[in-house]
Amino acid sequence: MATAQPTTDVLAEKHRSTLDQALATLRSRAYWSPYPEHPKAYGADGSLDATAGLAAHQAVLNGRFDLDQPGTDGWTGGEVSPYGPELGVEYPHADVDVLLPAMRVGLPAWRDAGPETRALVCLEILARISARTHEFAHAVMHTSGQAFMMAFQAGGPHAQDRGLEAVAYAYEEQTRTPAGRAAWSKPQGKRDPLELSKEFTPVGRGIALVIGCNTFPTWNGYPGLFASLATGNAVLVKPHPRAVLPLALTVKVAREVLAESGFDPNLVALATERPGEGIAKTLALRPEIRIIDYTGSTEFGDWLEANARQAQVYTEKAGVNTVLIDSTDDYKGMLSNLAFSLSLYSGQMCTTPQNLLIPRDGIATDQGPKSYDEVVADLAGAVGGLLGDDARANALLGALVNPDVKARLEAAAGLGEVALASREVANPDFPDAVVRTPVMVKLDGSKPDAEAAYLSECFGPVSFAVSVDSTADGLELLRRTIRDKGAMTVGAYTTSAETERAVEEVCLEESAQLSLNLTGGVYVNQTAAFSDFHGSGGNPAANAALCDGAFVSNRFRVVEVRRQA
Amino acid sequence: MATAQPTTDVLAEKHRSTLDQALATLRSRAYWSPYPEHPKAYGADGSLDATAGLAAHQAVLNGRFDLDQPGTDGWTGGEVSPYGPELGVEYPHADVDVLLPAMRVGLPAWRDAGPETRALVCLEILARISARTHEFAHAVMHTSGQAFMMAFQAGGPHAQDRGLEAVAYAYEEQTRTPAGRAAWSKPQGKRDPLELSKEFTPVGRGIALVIGCNTFPTWNGYPGLFASLATGNAVLVKPHPRAVLPLALTVKVAREVLAESGFDPNLVALATERPGEGIAKTLALRPEIRIIDYTGSTEFGDWLEANARQAQVYTEKAGVNTVLIDSTDDYKGMLSNLAFSLSLYSGQMCTTPQNLLIPRDGIATDQGPKSYDEVVADLAGAVGGLLGDDARANALLGALVNPDVKARLEAAAGLGEVALASREVANPDFPDAVVRTPVMVKLDGSKPDAEAAYLSECFGPVSFAVSVDSTADGLELLRRTIRDKGAMTVGAYTTSAETERAVEEVCLEESAQLSLNLTGGVYVNQTAAFSDFHGSGGNPAANAALCDGAFVSNRFRVVEVRRQA
Repeated sequence: MATAQPTTDVLAEKHRSTLDQALATLRSRAYWSPYPEHPKAYGADGSLDATAGLAAHQAVLNGRFDLDQPGTDGWTGGEVSPYGPELGVEYPHADVDVLLPAMRVGLPAWRDAGPETRALVCLEILARISARTHEFAHAVMHTSGQAFMMAFQAGGPHAQDRGLEAVAYAYEEQTRTPAGRAAWSKPQGKRDPLELSKEFTPVGRGIALVIGCNTFPTWNGYPGLFASLATGNAVLVKPHPRAVLPLALTVKVAREVLAESGFDPNLVALATERPGEGIAKTLALRPEIRIIDYTGSTEFGDWLEANARQAQVYTEKAGVNTVLIDSTDDYKGMLSNLAFSLSLYSGQMCTTPQNLLIPRDGIATDQGPKSYDEVVADLAGAVGGLLGDDARANALLGALVNPDVKARLEAAAGLGEVALASREVANPDFPDAVVRTPVMVKLDGSKPDAEAAYLSECFGPVSFAVSVDSTADGLELLRRTIRDKGAMTVGAYTTSAETERAVEEVCLEESAQLSLNLTGGVYVNQTAAFSDFHGSGGNPAANAALCDGAFVSNRFRVVEVRRQA
Repeated sequence: MATAQPTTDVLAEKHRSTLDQALATLRSRAYWSPYPEHPKAYGADGSLDATAGLAAHQAVLNGRFDLDQPGTDGWTGGEVSPYGPELGVEYPHADVDVLLPAMRVGLPAWRDAGPETRALVCLEILARISARTHEFAHAVMHTSGQAFMMAFQAGGPHAQDRGLEAVAYAYEEQTRTPAGRAAWSKPQGKRDPLELSKEFTPVGRGIALVIGCNTFPTWNGYPGLFASLATGNAVLVKPHPRAVLPLALTVKVAREVLAESGFDPNLVALATERPGEGIAKTLALRPEIRIIDYTGSTEFGDWLEANARQAQVYTEKAGVNTVLIDSTDDYKGMLSNLAFSLSLYSGQMCTTPQNLLIPRDGIATDQGPKSYDEVVADLAGAVGGLLGDDARANALLGALVNPDVKARLEAAAGLGEVALASREVANPDFPDAVVRTPVMVKLDGSKPDAEAAYLSECFGPVSFAVSVDSTADGLELLRRTIRDKGAMTVGAYTTSAETERAVEEVCLEESAQLSLNLTGGVYVNQTAAFSDFHGSGGNPAANAALCDGAFVSNRFRVVEVRRQA
């Protein structure tokens, strides 16, 4: 790879210190991010400011999004913003019998480039994406329905963080064996030692498939995309048909950087589908596809795990997130923290709490004992207060991502006594946006007929205030929920050391990530890259965590060449 | 775990430096082993010398091997040495409905002990096994049919090395997150920073199942056993019914060390089966079993991968190992190196070459050009010379492990022209031992009807001298063989830089471990722990490599507890 050397030097100059800081932070788990969270931080150094970002977004609307990919046999599109407007973008549709072989062509050179160059090229891709964060924010907003600020942060720097995290893990994992040839000499007593020269090469598995989701196209797509690319694979990105644009932009940037760095741009490609075509199933079973990353329904995730046997399959599926409320020394903080968690992005996060387990005899608080009814009413009041102002409600809730969520929200009111009714919020900027506040429904945890409701994921702005006989009863329900249904997150509030220990024990035994007594500005549904794990990979909600060694270590294999020394 | 602290201190004093050296060697891939290879190195420091080892072995024969396990509902045995004698040992048979729940009891304390204590306890188990290497050598010899010296080395120090390697990888993988609570503080401009305390706990998945093999019960069993135990799991060992004793001894030592260290001995247990009971299938589908390590047939390995969906499944299956012979500058060294590889343990290693691809127009050597027929005849002569002396033949060949191998050997002579006939070797010490020299059969690689023979694994002392049209033709056959049938090892001999690069490319693209131009005392079928990978995990012969990050990283999950700071 003589041609890649100058590129590597230039990229190392730009990005090596960022990579090193990422590697160090993965060990310390401290707070760090190289990508600014504040919209006003953009505009210098060639990055797009708010105006330029919006202009760039508008420039791609109502046109063809050409990627110059091999095997393009037509154009397809049809995204409609959850805020109302049609995006009008057409994307290339691929003849995969042409595209997949073309994606393999660049694999040997990508392999020979080695882990460091691959990591640096990935960091350059991320840097260019970062510079266009304002543009990506609009793309994420108008495909996911996230409010602008959330689309900006979660779809921008936070997604980029998760991509960089995956690159750093991939780099570290691939550099556990020495670069170049290593000498090996085994003493043989008085005879000459046995001597070999050994060379270890990390090799990707082939083509990786990323199956994107509707709600977090970049945040959930980047870990698998960058983990696979950094470990020497080509990556085919199959976006959710309602959320193509953010990943199409990503693929375009990746192809540009690859080509500029002397690699085959076809190492990253986009696969879109015609309405009803369902190409994910077809692609997932292709022999060329050796890795699959998927975020979505349990049904399809389970299908992938069972059927795409030629591939390593990483899935994030449905789960039932629970918060156990035993007691608190900051009742007000608890209520406002929970109200925010339930409201953010209309509860359309895989990490949003669904079941609030509250002892039917009430809880102890710093404001005296509170009955089950009082806790529920106060929480409903906190949500109502938080979302009472329409402008703030719009900024927090965003829009419902699709009609299925709206249907579930409307049906939820029939499942039990409504403690907090959903209300429609008008969005002055986007009159067609479907904006709704969350509904909270009371359910009796001792009634078997209520189980069907609270032991299923009801994705969207729906929570269940489930009365339990006692904290111990709640712990058992928590355990059963995680074991049988999975959980991306668990929360708990308690002032009792014993209860704290008990809920930790449940989470350790059932492998769920626990947030204890959050009353400030960190929420159970948010995780920070380089520090927090997203999911555990140990319960039915996901078979992998973002991001750990296991997430990257099987995306490549190490081939050893031993030579007589 | 206050009770475990003194234990940890004592064990750290004994073993921490060994662990550190293992960790360093995994990075350098240099030669190292803490376990002596030479039989005479044993006898001091409480280890058993040759006489004591034999006595210990004989003391367990013809009796009950009690492990004091819960749920023992009977006794079963019936091992017959490939050297003739019945072992006469009876092992506990378990009611798994009693045993499996009992194995889970000790899991929380084992988890709470943490990665370092678990690693140190594993090293103590290995140290005690090492001290009894002479005893284990007899147990391995009389179950696998390996000759004594090989049983001693491969079944003793080399197996212990692979166990230690797995412990070191497991320790490193689990300590990537900080021990104790880590502070996290995210700046918020002029406002107070967001602050959390975070705690990361590696948790095992539950009970791991090790399904042992007949030929290398300890060498192939230890990596999975120790990787799972070190990552916080309990381990149920299900030996091959013909090779129970080495793993029963292992389980006994593990249980003793666990109990002495303050842990539940039921964290490691043995599961033997009555004739025809086939408990591997039943155990593999139990919900308690979350990890499976298996070495054996492709058929059962594939079944496990497809059906034991509740578990992480690591398999080593059949493959077709190939040596491509293009040219050599050390003809004599090549012949003697290959002759040894084909003869060692009667070719009953998963790494033994099977197909020797030789251009039909012959090869260039330092002794002038050699025709295909000459190469085959000279290699046959080299094997014949190596095994001409019965004492040396017995020491190299060992005995055929079971009647299936004998049947395959006898059938092989009918597959083509026999270049080297197998001969029966008498073993003066064990008159009932079935000892045979290897057969070599000529096959024409251009004849489709020969493919059925050389493209199937013919496990045992059988090799095929396959004529190919050219080196390029051989490279294509090599690629096809690895891709379709898998390979644990690939060898090649060439003096051409171009051919060397081409064979490397095939191995990199098809993910196979390559040995180039071995002419000295290192053989293609041998790997050294801490340095060489055994298998790649990237072709059909095995879905995992011994040992790398991927082999350990999914045996545990990291559970995070976040607290308001």
